[in-house]
Amino acid sequence: MNRRPTRVQRQNPFELRPLLRVIGLLLTVLACFMMPPMIVDLVYGHRDWLVFLLTGGVTLFVGVSLLLANRGSIIQALSTRQAFILTTSVWVVLTAFAALPFLYADQQMSLADAVFEATSGITTTGSTVMSGLEEAPPGLLLWRSILQWLGGIGIIVMGVAVLPLLSVGGMQLFRTENSDRSDKILPRAGQLASAIGSVYLLFTLACAVAYAVAGMSWFDAINHAMTTVATGGYSTRDASMAAFDSATIEWIAVAFMFTGAIPFVLYIQALGGEPGILVRDTQVVWFTGIVLAAWTLMAGTLVVGHGLDPMTALRHAAFNTTSIVTGTGYATTDFGGWGPLAVTFFFFLMCVGGCTGSTTGGIKVFRFAVLYAIARTQILRLIQPSGVFLATYNGRLIPDAVAISVMAFFFLFALSFSVIALLLSALGLDYLTAMSAAITSLANVGPGLGPVVGPVLNFSDIPEAAKWIMAFAMLLGRLEMFTILVLLAPAFWRK
Amino acid sequence: MNRRPTRVQRQNPFELRPLLRVIGLLLTVLACFMMPPMIVDLVYGHRDWLVFLLTGGVTLFVGVSLLLANRGSIIQALSTRQAFILTTSVWVVLTAFAALPFLYADQQMSLADAVFEATSGITTTGSTVMSGLEEAPPGLLLWRSILQWLGGIGIIVMGVAVLPLLSVGGMQLFRTENSDRSDKILPRAGQLASAIGSVYLLFTLACAVAYAVAGMSWFDAINHAMTTVATGGYSTRDASMAAFDSATIEWIAVAFMFTGAIPFVLYIQALGGEPGILVRDTQVVWFTGIVLAAWTLMAGTLVVGHGLDPMTALRHAAFNTTSIVTGTGYATTDFGGWGPLAVTFFFFLMCVGGCTGSTTGGIKVFRFAVLYAIARTQILRLIQPSGVFLATYNGRLIPDAVAISVMAFFFLFALSFSVIALLLSALGLDYLTAMSAAITSLANVGPGLGPVVGPVLNFSDIPEAAKWIMAFAMLLGRLEMFTILVLLAPAFWRK
Repeated sequence: MNRRPTRVQRQNPFELRPLLRVIGLLLTVLACFMMPPMIVDLVYGHRDWLVFLLTGGVTLFVGVSLLLANRGSIIQALSTRQAFILTTSVWVVLTAFAALPFLYADQQMSLADAVFEATSGITTTGSTVMSGLEEAPPGLLLWRSILQWLGGIGIIVMGVAVLPLLSVGGMQLFRTENSDRSDKILPRAGQLASAIGSVYLLFTLACAVAYAVAGMSWFDAINHAMTTVATGGYSTRDASMAAFDSATIEWIAVAFMFTGAIPFVLYIQALGGEPGILVRDTQVVWFTGIVLAAWTLMAGTLVVGHGLDPMTALRHAAFNTTSIVTGTGYATTDFGGWGPLAVTFFFFLMCVGGCTGSTTGGIKVFRFAVLYAIARTQILRLIQPSGVFLATYNGRLIPDAVAISVMAFFFLFALSFSVIALLLSALGLDYLTAMSAAITSLANVGPGLGPVVGPVLNFSDIPEAAKWIMAFAMLLGRLEMFTILVLLAPAFWRK
Repeated sequence: MNRRPTRVQRQNPFELRPLLRVIGLLLTVLACFMMPPMIVDLVYGHRDWLVFLLTGGVTLFVGVSLLLANRGSIIQALSTRQAFILTTSVWVVLTAFAALPFLYADQQMSLADAVFEATSGITTTGSTVMSGLEEAPPGLLLWRSILQWLGGIGIIVMGVAVLPLLSVGGMQLFRTENSDRSDKILPRAGQLASAIGSVYLLFTLACAVAYAVAGMSWFDAINHAMTTVATGGYSTRDASMAAFDSATIEWIAVAFMFTGAIPFVLYIQALGGEPGILVRDTQVVWFTGIVLAAWTLMAGTLVVGHGLDPMTALRHAAFNTTSIVTGTGYATTDFGGWGPLAVTFFFFLMCVGGCTGSTTGGIKVFRFAVLYAIARTQILRLIQPSGVFLATYNGRLIPDAVAISVMAFFFLFALSFSVIALLLSALGLDYLTAMSAAITSLANVGPGLGPVVGPVLNFSDIPEAAKWIMAFAMLLGRLEMFTILVLLAPAFWRK
């Protein structure tokens, strides 16, 4: 088991030991995060504390074993294939261990339910199969929030440090200087994780304090702060944010969901003496525009169609559209009842997502900016076939390779969505349920639409097989399609 | 009015006189085609004959006036901008005149209804606002069929001779040698129109004879033959093809709908001594695969989910899936009742369409073949960043420019679909109705889905504004998005 490291490892693109070491490290971290729920259950006197102790112990044991068994293997020297295998397997393995508390807790969830809940947590989707949250053990509630919080920082670091190097779906646009070799993946991830992690923690604390000041209990405040900044959307209440019925709390949530949807590297750069970047960056400009347009359209719908006064309409519109476009998934009301326009609008809004390098999912704003720039130059070229028209992003030329990569992502997103919607329909879900469940899982949003999986309902009533499909879709979306799809290509496994 | 032609015309990209001459010519042709309905109404003793005489007279007058006023203007020398203006304005102007009989006939349609019906006809969509077709005047029924038949040959010629030269949505893939200058658009259109027109006429006659032999009256046979080969879908019966309740007739329809969805140049090449091309061409191979997969899936659904015997299931599945994927739009049954999978499946099937250079609409099979080839090479490049992977279509390399053009089309198709679905929802249509009405019009299919606009229903009950939006969507789809969208770009109108 404990062979000495040799340079031969670098030659074999399928060498697994460095990967197992990383997974071991992350499992150890995960095990540590199972302790707060244990403590909370002990404090509240709930017998689930034992579940967290045992599952934490198992996770710790596996993690430390992997660490020890593979110590000394060279993590710095990952091949592209190793990086792909590592990225997918980290999420799959961590999800599997994260599901253990759900499986063995007092709630007695089925395997499908536990995996669904854990995947939905760690991918910051926020779809849930649990109800009766007010009576649920506090440890399990905290565990759900912690999963989203960890998933949030995980996806930020992956989006900043891993995906750009793997050139996934046009992410090579976000390569920085001296980061263009995949050998450098992990050191860079380490540096960035600490800087971004601090900002992330700071935002979470600020959010928790704001919630508490606005009237939440500290338990609710901390849980919601974690799932707000992570744009996750798990709540401690069945009624989600509606349970607090407070405009102040809702506007705090809007502010921090928006904050969580902005690229976190921009905060680092802003703190590093370049605050202007936060209002100049193409993604931020586009995202702000989309959010304000969504607020206006839905507030207008509520004023005109439902006779609400403008301030109430704005409150409901701002909260629910921000929640959906950032992929958070809190709800204060069933926006399915806002009329036919709202249903269709929220469906498309789910696809959009926030900025890359943030905690959000979906197609992401930078891809729309790139697609728009390309479509525009295409039209100009049709008009003047001999003219030279260049598509730009953030003031820089978009190379053809990036253009094709972004567009291939868009196509694969549409294709995956179609296949998932068809599979869910084949299991008997009606059109609106299947379509919205497919998009909400693939874009990591949370609630569906309609009378089965709508925003004030949950996913407990869909078939077991549908839960497995949705869980797969959440991972597929979270890993930007390509990361998983390459593993399905036979060519990947050939030497 | 009747100035002598000068060479100066060639210098002005917005010179309209050559365009008016083409429009005049086509209006004159349209006027001639108003005569058969007049004759039929005379024979059947219906007073609508006067309507066709008068609208035909007006159309002829305008057409001949335009011809005379612009005689001698140089049609051969069209600039790219002129070609774009011509293409869109031909369809708009012809639709406007084609709507006249609907407006003034006995049926007393509203303006929106008349424009909807005419647009749906000429774009070979086949959505209708008319009911009580069995009692409708025979002239008007024939007029609907003639419109689809003319629209069918129009789109074939446009897809073969015009769009490839304008490089619309990757259509430059279908440029042939010595056809790479837009100067040559019209002569080439003339040559091809006669060759393809003969084949088209031949298929129509064969289809009519087959229908008649199978038991249709000659009137029904001729009408349905025109709308089958044109993959249009207008019927002379409210119940569409179900009215005949004949498996033979349905299989004849399947054969000729399929025939109409194959690129017509291939028939010319096959007749020219190269029959193998009909089974080798990438579009034909992909399209056949898609059709057979659709048959299998839906027949399986009917056998497993509804207990039909396999032959009956195959009959229903083959007829209805072929009708939808080719964008014909006949129905024999409400496939909305085949269960949730069928609803979602038919929705996605509507997007697909047939081959380019045929009478079908939708995204079209060659674009899926191109998108698949690109997505595949993208994945291979991710695995081996240093490798060289080339996407090919029909054995030839896909240039990056074509790849980007095809993908931009896909994005604009998705975007247009979203906008149209949102607009229809804003008018109060429910999610399924709005989504399916948007896709059925944009992809020129015909029927929608669900309890308002489903396959055994029609579009008479949707708001007037929705009819205008759908009519615009039909034209947008028929002209492959870009052709209309370039006209909306301010840059188009600048010198």
